[in-house]
Amino acid sequence: MEIKILQDILKSNKDVAGEIRQMLREKNVYMIDMMSSPGSGKTTLNDKIIGKLKEKYRIGVIEGDIKTTKDAERLAKHDIPIIQIETDRFGGDCHLESTWIKKCLEGFDLDKLDLIIVENIGNLVCPAEFEIGDDERMVVLSVTEGEDKPAKYPLMFNTCRTMVLNKIDLLPYLDYSMDELMKNLSNVNPGMKVIQVSATKGDGMDELITHISRNIDKKIGM
Amino acid sequence: MEIKILQDILKSNKDVAGEIRQMLREKNVYMIDMMSSPGSGKTTLNDKIIGKLKEKYRIGVIEGDIKTTKDAERLAKHDIPIIQIETDRFGGDCHLESTWIKKCLEGFDLDKLDLIIVENIGNLVCPAEFEIGDDERMVVLSVTEGEDKPAKYPLMFNTCRTMVLNKIDLLPYLDYSMDELMKNLSNVNPGMKVIQVSATKGDGMDELITHISRNIDKKIGM
Repeated sequence: MEIKILQDILKSNKDVAGEIRQMLREKNVYMIDMMSSPGSGKTTLNDKIIGKLKEKYRIGVIEGDIKTTKDAERLAKHDIPIIQIETDRFGGDCHLESTWIKKCLEGFDLDKLDLIIVENIGNLVCPAEFEIGDDERMVVLSVTEGEDKPAKYPLMFNTCRTMVLNKIDLLPYLDYSMDELMKNLSNVNPGMKVIQVSATKGDGMDELITHISRNIDKKIGM
Repeated sequence: MEIKILQDILKSNKDVAGEIRQMLREKNVYMIDMMSSPGSGKTTLNDKIIGKLKEKYRIGVIEGDIKTTKDAERLAKHDIPIIQIETDRFGGDCHLESTWIKKCLEGFDLDKLDLIIVENIGNLVCPAEFEIGDDERMVVLSVTEGEDKPAKYPLMFNTCRTMVLNKIDLLPYLDYSMDELMKNLSNVNPGMKVIQVSATKGDGMDELITHISRNIDKKIGM
C-alpha cells in the first residue's frame, strides 16, 4: 500500500526549490516558470521569445507535458538545449515538481546558459502550488478563455508576478470586456504586471521582450 | 501530520461512484459529467443546453469551481435547482470527487429531476482520474486551444464518450487543421462521438440537443 505523507512532500519540494535558486544564483542563470491553461499559446509564445532573444542570450528550455514531445519538437528548430519531461511515465502528474527540475538542470551545462524557460504543464490549478525555484512566475492567459479566470483560479494569479494576455488579435471577434478582466485581476493581485500580446501576429511582443531582457540583465549583470 | 492513503481514497471514490450510479438508476435520472480546460465555454454551453431542454426535462446543475459562484449565477435565470461546490473551502481541489457529488444529489429532490449536468472544474488532467457515477462523460474542447490536446491529455480524451468541439465560429480567424485534430483524437479514442458547435452563435446546437435528448430518453424511457 502506497502511503504519501503530504506535508513532507510539499516541504521537500520547497527545500529543493531553495537549492535550485542557489544553483541558479551561483551559475548566473535567470529562470522563468511559464504556466497556463491548456491551449493558451505557451509554445507559440516561447517560439517567438526564443527567436527574438537567442542572439543576445544563451537559452535552455524545459518542456513539461503529460504525454508527447510535440512542444519540444516545435522548438527544436532553434537549435538550443531542450529537455522534455513526460509525466505520463511516472503517474501522469498534473504539474512539475522541483526535484524533476533539478534533475533537468543537472542535464544542462549551466555555465553555458543565461536563461531557462520552463513551460509547465497546461493546468491553472496544480502547478501554482509547487515552487520550482524560478526567478519569475509568469501566467499566460488567452482572451478566448474569458475574463473570469483570475477570480476562479486565485492562487495562480495571486502568486505570479507577470501575466501575458495572449491572442489579442481575436478581440474583434469576441464579446470581451478588458475592464472586467482588470477588475478581477486587481482583486487578487493589484500590482501585477500585465503585457498584452498576440504571439501569432506579433502585437505587444516588443514590450514582452524588453520586460524579459531587463529582468535577465538585472540578475546576470549584463 | 496529515496522512492520506492514496489507494484507499481512489477506491472509496470509485465505490461511491457505484452508489451514485445505483441511486440515479433507481430515481431515473440521467447525469452528464462535463469537463474541459478553463475557458473552453462550458457555462455558455450549459446555458444554451438548459434553455433548449428545460421545457422537456426537469434539469438540475452541479457547478464545480475552486472559487466564486460566478457560473452558478450565470445559470440562475433558468430557475432550476443549482448546487455550487467551491473546493477552495476545503483545500482548493482541482477536481470533483464522488463523495461531494453524492452530497449534492442528497440536496436535490431526485424524484423531480430527469437530467443533472455536472460542470466539473476547469482542468484537463485531474477530473479525468475521478469517476463520479455519471451516465456520460463529455469533454468540451474549444478550437482556440489547438489541435494537439487529445494527444497531450490522453486520459481525458480516452475516457470520455463524447467530445463537443466549441467556438467553431472562430475557425475563419485561426490557422486550424481539423484533420490534425481528428487524427490526434482517433489515436486515443477512435470511436468517439464528436459534435461541432458554436455555443455563442448557435451552430451545431441542434445536433447536440438531439444527441443528449436521445440518451436521456433511452435511460428514463420517455
